[in-house]
Amino acid sequence: MKTKIAIGIDVGGTNTVFGFVDQEGNCIFESSIPTHAGQNALQLFERLFLNINHDFSKFSGTYELVGIGIGAPNANYYKGTVELPPNLNWGVVNVLEIVKKYSALPAAITNDANAAAIGEMIFGAAVGMKDFIVITLGTGLGSGIVVNSQLVYGADGFAGEIGHTIVDPEGRACGCGRKGCLETYASASGIRRTVYMMMGSTNIPSELRNISFNQLTSKDIADAAIRGDQLALDAFDYTAKILGLKLADAVAHLSPEAIILFGGLALAGDLIFAPTKRYMEEYMLNIFKNKVELLPSALPGAHAAVLGASALIWNELKRK
Amino acid sequence: MKTKIAIGIDVGGTNTVFGFVDQEGNCIFESSIPTHAGQNALQLFERLFLNINHDFSKFSGTYELVGIGIGAPNANYYKGTVELPPNLNWGVVNVLEIVKKYSALPAAITNDANAAAIGEMIFGAAVGMKDFIVITLGTGLGSGIVVNSQLVYGADGFAGEIGHTIVDPEGRACGCGRKGCLETYASASGIRRTVYMMMGSTNIPSELRNISFNQLTSKDIADAAIRGDQLALDAFDYTAKILGLKLADAVAHLSPEAIILFGGLALAGDLIFAPTKRYMEEYMLNIFKNKVELLPSALPGAHAAVLGASALIWNELKRK
Repeated sequence: MKTKIAIGIDVGGTNTVFGFVDQEGNCIFESSIPTHAGQNALQLFERLFLNINHDFSKFSGTYELVGIGIGAPNANYYKGTVELPPNLNWGVVNVLEIVKKYSALPAAITNDANAAAIGEMIFGAAVGMKDFIVITLGTGLGSGIVVNSQLVYGADGFAGEIGHTIVDPEGRACGCGRKGCLETYASASGIRRTVYMMMGSTNIPSELRNISFNQLTSKDIADAAIRGDQLALDAFDYTAKILGLKLADAVAHLSPEAIILFGGLALAGDLIFAPTKRYMEEYMLNIFKNKVELLPSALPGAHAAVLGASALIWNELKRK
Repeated sequence: MKTKIAIGIDVGGTNTVFGFVDQEGNCIFESSIPTHAGQNALQLFERLFLNINHDFSKFSGTYELVGIGIGAPNANYYKGTVELPPNLNWGVVNVLEIVKKYSALPAAITNDANAAAIGEMIFGAAVGMKDFIVITLGTGLGSGIVVNSQLVYGADGFAGEIGHTIVDPEGRACGCGRKGCLETYASASGIRRTVYMMMGSTNIPSELRNISFNQLTSKDIADAAIRGDQLALDAFDYTAKILGLKLADAVAHLSPEAIILFGGLALAGDLIFAPTKRYMEEYMLNIFKNKVELLPSALPGAHAAVLGASALIWNELKRK
């Protein structure tokens, strides 16, 4: 009997990654193609399935494909659509209808943070948990919320936008058009903004003062902090204070067993985990104190996106 | 065949209300006894069941009791306990164990805001909805969150504390020991605090300046606002702005179909609903704008607490 595997697809602004993942979370194969943000969705999936069919031919003797899971920006699980993704020229498009042209396999789509949450539940740090939150700290701040072992999609399929809760209604300009959203402070871009605000507001010497805004990465800030750069350390503390405050708010809503941090800024490890945990506990209602774990992702970094996307469809198949 | 009815019990700091409610939400009978906050839980339930058994004897020819639903402060649905209720001398006590001494009927317990949420789902404004939030605006601010037609209890049974999300970490002192919790602004007590802050910070003339802090009620503020009192109107606007901001945050987490306002301050009607809705929309992420209804409770005020408590057990019985 052939081993069952699912296709995981992660659509990014630059590259679209795909791979084959078995029921235990082993990634058998992974590859990627350029997304070409100017092309429409139909053109991407046509190229994608040419590659998938070609690459799968090497495995078809031992493996059987059972489903397709897709992570994509602004994806709507209920409708199968992607709606006005910020970095792609797609407009509003029904991706699951497009996929049907190329494959009869069961398919599901959700946004990348929700895919990460299901990935942690099926293969990662949240195995065995019924209530948890995944926070992705990348260019923005995404979130996937699980309650009673189910992803929270809400009435319209767009729940889980903790990155757009408001820290300060008169705060930093956000890409969404409003001011003071959490992701303008707590994300790889947010900490970079904090560093530049601090360069202006303080006289603290810092090696980061030699790097331009456009060149600076969150890894540069982490590296400087590890070398003891005070401004970089202050920027991590400032970021953690705001993140800890808003995570305490999320706990007051949902009382999760754990909050899992995922993505670029989470790779800074204790620099971000230790102060975030300290501030989260400080701002937390008494009944929740010392109950909620703050954990790093347990999805292997190299394949995290494809594992998350494949977990979406494995989870659907399990529920049937 | 006898008609099935459930017992609804709402434990308050002053009085404990109980009643008999049929499957359609008709309250056949309602009465109350003093809670005697200094007594322990066993003493209350002994008196309560003496009354329930006596009062039910008049109905036993036509009705059959099928279950007991209880709303109580700091109640834990999972454990059946009430834990350190602020206004009762109970400590930590397993209420469902006590109930077993007096009745073999299936029983369930939750806090009053969660009972209100289930009440709205089964008998009130949320019939047919799968995702909604109930906010109770009384002395404090309580909340009950429903996702996928299930009350959100979280990992420990205490989820739904939106009243203790933080508006300003340096803000008003809260009964929970922290500062700036939403309920210190948006509740019957919160708007009273706002009125007194405004009396100090402005010179706006107001009829409320003749009333002492301890005497002023949220109804006095609403009555003054209806008569055009500017300070009272400003206090409603200030309250609504903060409530609208934090409801927009709740929407970003959960994307509910509706938010239902319940309790004393909600009785101010358009004075609180109109500006709260306006600010909530202003602070909301684009994808959620004009999707979330802000509704008044549809549980008949006189019996709301007993209907909510009985709905808890009707909901349990339906799921079996």
